[in-house]
Amino acid sequence: MIAERLQALRNYMASKNLDAFIIPSTDPHQSEYVADHWKLRAYFSGFTGSAGILVVTQNVAALWTDSRYFLQFEDECKDSEVTLFKQSIPHAPEHVAWLCDSFEKNATIGVDYRQFSKSQIDYILSFTKPKNIKLQNEPHFAKEIWTDRPNLPNFEVTIHPLEFSGEATASKLAKVQAEIQKQEANFYLFSSLDEIAWLFNIRSSDVDFTPLVTAYALVGLERTILFCNTNRFNENVIAVFEKLNISIKDYNSIASTLPGITSGKKIVTDASSLNYACFEAVNGSFIYQKSLVKRLKAIKNETEIAGSRDCMIKDGVALTKFFIWLEKELATKTISEYEIGRKLDSFRQQQEYYTGESFPAIVGYKGNGAIIHYTAPEENSAQVSNEGILLVDSGAQYKNGTTDITRTVWLGGTPATKLKTAYTSVLKGYIELEQLQFPTGTSGAQIDAFARVHLWKNGLDYPHGTGHGIGSFGMVHEPAQGFATGATTERGTAPHLPNQLTTIEPGCYVVGEFGIRTENIVVSKIVNETTFGKFLGFEALTLCYIDTNLLNYEELSTFEINWLNNYHQIVLNKLSPFLNEKEKQWLQDKCKTI
Amino acid sequence: MIAERLQALRNYMASKNLDAFIIPSTDPHQSEYVADHWKLRAYFSGFTGSAGILVVTQNVAALWTDSRYFLQFEDECKDSEVTLFKQSIPHAPEHVAWLCDSFEKNATIGVDYRQFSKSQIDYILSFTKPKNIKLQNEPHFAKEIWTDRPNLPNFEVTIHPLEFSGEATASKLAKVQAEIQKQEANFYLFSSLDEIAWLFNIRSSDVDFTPLVTAYALVGLERTILFCNTNRFNENVIAVFEKLNISIKDYNSIASTLPGITSGKKIVTDASSLNYACFEAVNGSFIYQKSLVKRLKAIKNETEIAGSRDCMIKDGVALTKFFIWLEKELATKTISEYEIGRKLDSFRQQQEYYTGESFPAIVGYKGNGAIIHYTAPEENSAQVSNEGILLVDSGAQYKNGTTDITRTVWLGGTPATKLKTAYTSVLKGYIELEQLQFPTGTSGAQIDAFARVHLWKNGLDYPHGTGHGIGSFGMVHEPAQGFATGATTERGTAPHLPNQLTTIEPGCYVVGEFGIRTENIVVSKIVNETTFGKFLGFEALTLCYIDTNLLNYEELSTFEINWLNNYHQIVLNKLSPFLNEKEKQWLQDKCKTI
Repeated sequence: MIAERLQALRNYMASKNLDAFIIPSTDPHQSEYVADHWKLRAYFSGFTGSAGILVVTQNVAALWTDSRYFLQFEDECKDSEVTLFKQSIPHAPEHVAWLCDSFEKNATIGVDYRQFSKSQIDYILSFTKPKNIKLQNEPHFAKEIWTDRPNLPNFEVTIHPLEFSGEATASKLAKVQAEIQKQEANFYLFSSLDEIAWLFNIRSSDVDFTPLVTAYALVGLERTILFCNTNRFNENVIAVFEKLNISIKDYNSIASTLPGITSGKKIVTDASSLNYACFEAVNGSFIYQKSLVKRLKAIKNETEIAGSRDCMIKDGVALTKFFIWLEKELATKTISEYEIGRKLDSFRQQQEYYTGESFPAIVGYKGNGAIIHYTAPEENSAQVSNEGILLVDSGAQYKNGTTDITRTVWLGGTPATKLKTAYTSVLKGYIELEQLQFPTGTSGAQIDAFARVHLWKNGLDYPHGTGHGIGSFGMVHEPAQGFATGATTERGTAPHLPNQLTTIEPGCYVVGEFGIRTENIVVSKIVNETTFGKFLGFEALTLCYIDTNLLNYEELSTFEINWLNNYHQIVLNKLSPFLNEKEKQWLQDKCKTI
Repeated sequence: MIAERLQALRNYMASKNLDAFIIPSTDPHQSEYVADHWKLRAYFSGFTGSAGILVVTQNVAALWTDSRYFLQFEDECKDSEVTLFKQSIPHAPEHVAWLCDSFEKNATIGVDYRQFSKSQIDYILSFTKPKNIKLQNEPHFAKEIWTDRPNLPNFEVTIHPLEFSGEATASKLAKVQAEIQKQEANFYLFSSLDEIAWLFNIRSSDVDFTPLVTAYALVGLERTILFCNTNRFNENVIAVFEKLNISIKDYNSIASTLPGITSGKKIVTDASSLNYACFEAVNGSFIYQKSLVKRLKAIKNETEIAGSRDCMIKDGVALTKFFIWLEKELATKTISEYEIGRKLDSFRQQQEYYTGESFPAIVGYKGNGAIIHYTAPEENSAQVSNEGILLVDSGAQYKNGTTDITRTVWLGGTPATKLKTAYTSVLKGYIELEQLQFPTGTSGAQIDAFARVHLWKNGLDYPHGTGHGIGSFGMVHEPAQGFATGATTERGTAPHLPNQLTTIEPGCYVVGEFGIRTENIVVSKIVNETTFGKFLGFEALTLCYIDTNLLNYEELSTFEINWLNNYHQIVLNKLSPFLNEKEKQWLQDKCKTI
């Protein structure tokens, strides 16, 4: 199947004199999760991981992805000709140098300009130009090949109300317009779906796991255009938007609208998200900056933080009921990983405001827990029994917030010493980073290692960053801030500021044996202010017991023991009002003082 | 005086139609400390700090420097028109954007190409080109103005013998030649003085505080040219070099030699150190890479590490005798900071292999300790008495190594609580980073914060990186590795590897009150190897007691108390054989178990 698709692509390439084709995993909005319509890379390679870039030449089909996906790649692509190229840095464009080295001068590479940001194409051009290698825009390359390609999503767009958003669209737009004026420009052009959802307080279900709306937005000083199919809005919304001087035009009309409306104008935009087709369609001049909306939305307002606190209770109640169910069921039978994931979701579905999962739940039993982005297959996933270790990383979208939590639990039997050391070190690392006090503005790369230090002491580590920003009924991975080991990603370089929501999720993985991860969402807040500046700290918002079966108590300091007892007391206090007597007793036992 | 010099420069600029002139603090080799001949920026601005860039237009004379130098600038430039522009990042070229914003199109900026690296000029061009601003090479701009400009240094060049270098020139050259072959090139061009001194095992005293030789080197596969005045070498050295196919040609002949010899050839070089005049003189094509020699010399061989251990004993003995002298003298009189610095040097001078100080000693009493790069003036420096706090940061060049150490001592009276908290937190931070175990290849930015965490807990911090690489009878600040808060410097991004020498030097400064810094040199070594990789740790090489008068014992953990007692035992064991009975007793008291 993959062979046929690649052959069809190669025929197309031959007909267009293309020496290579680059197919990334994204859509015209640089989205992490994309609508089925945009799953081109998966279609042509068979690899379904969320990060990866396919490069096809007449002789080679090569896929670049990072260590999180190596095992998944081997599994999904073992029967095809697709070769793995291991990225040393996730998302790094390491294929570009390889591709340019593969060709003599004057080769031509096909790409769909919409799938690349302005910055990405600039980067590619810095390699191709010196060798006279040409880029050719091929937006229709898949048309004749992928005949049953799904349509673009067209669900109704709903308003994210003030009780959840905490800030009216008018107020948000005014901030953008103030920036346009400050830059002495005419427009601000947005193409990131999460930024558009935040700015216009709109939501839908276009993209898997994320309540976003496929759209572009051109904010002007007098009039703003939201490019999104008009049939997706009911009359009330159109009327409200009209009062805010927002016109809604069909999504695809952006291509024909941009050249005229921008003629001779100055447009502020973020080159790292603007797709290259839009860049080419603009007739005016650009002022580039890190997106203002990205910066604004990373700081949560009081309503959003209150919403997050509320959905942590909902999530914690669902998780408690789930773990009670799991313990009870496993006493008498085995259950597949897949089934466990579905059951967990069913407990969340009972919660108010629930709209769906925020990412594909990871339920990894024993060695499967070591596959960092594991998804249990619907058929024949591992049977979980009442012994060994289980990693559960899951999250949900509630109308008042987005959750993401990982717990690793011991199901029975006697854990190996090495397992307990790893689990204890992971928890110690979580506490170390969560309890850190640091100057406002500190970058993620500067403090990521605090979550690793106890693992390092034992010769252990984990091959991923320690956490990421998270949206408010938005993306589960929300830029900019987070914790990463280097300056190659925004999560490493972006400053930590007050009132941000971020995950802390250290782990430890031994291939074929086990995966451990402990993850909470934390909110940042100012905890000290001196002549040396303002100092931030974190408060854990996630509410779910932490399994003590795998802890080596003697390796915990008094501070860490107090932390755990205090956290468990909070979990108990906040969740108990929503549990029945039996559930409460079960949770009391899990949260008992150590 | 400064006014006259600036006027003369402006007249020159007018005669050449220059709208601005950029005068950096460096020489044609991007040196940190430069020969007097190259102190152009100090000559025209009056500011003598080691980092800073002067920009002169007809209306403005502006100096960019970083927070380490703000107080020094205010002091030195208070009577001139020179304005301070505060750099948020040390050495960052923040003046370039400012300068380009100040001009309409078609302006011309004067620079001496030799004072800028290829990378720096590329950066400037990225701002000037879009505005059609021209750069003009003005190597002779100071000729008519600075009439008593010192000549270039011309001291004898000596061989750094194998007993100190640990690797013969032939072996080092062979590694460079292997790289030239690997790159399918013809030459490797070096312009960093420390790299040339290492590669050819040569030393002299051209540059303040650093035993380097002013030279360029063009390494070829068959023949190597060292551009350095021939009259600086005795016949034996010339004969030895001739056997290694190394020709010595006069320093200034590089300008006339490069175009011919490089014609049609491929030259490997490091764009961040190659000066732009050399870049323009080359007639062939370049292959840029991070300098191979920089990478090689950052890893010390066994001889160099043994040499360092030896000179730490010499340095420790000198410091012990110095602190004994200081305590005794202060009992009956006051002594100026300047005199204290000279006396310290006199104790070092008594040590074998001593050749000079490795940087201007910082002797800062009370509030002066808060001036991070303070140099006590020869006249009227503060009188130190037997009360309050004194910071002493100093180092020396020995033929078998380079030292750099800071100690902060309490001279008498009752220290304020805040002072003790800061001092204790600094020591705790030092221990935290020195005792860290981390994966080989970890960058300095990832672990710098471990030295800050105890200060942060108390709302304290320090405005500089936590440490730097150090040479072996070479530069006191040797790239690449170190500890910095971000990825804007090599010290932040370079990987830590085994057998590197690095300083750890956290501090705390309160303007007008006190400065605290505790600094040791440490050597990195592999302390653990697991399936997760190799893990590094540090061992302190510096040998000098740490004052316990300012410690809050109750804030120290058992681990930290053990660390201090163990360190003091090592200091005592290693230094005692070189002390007389009275000195030994004094040191025993300073090192007594707490």
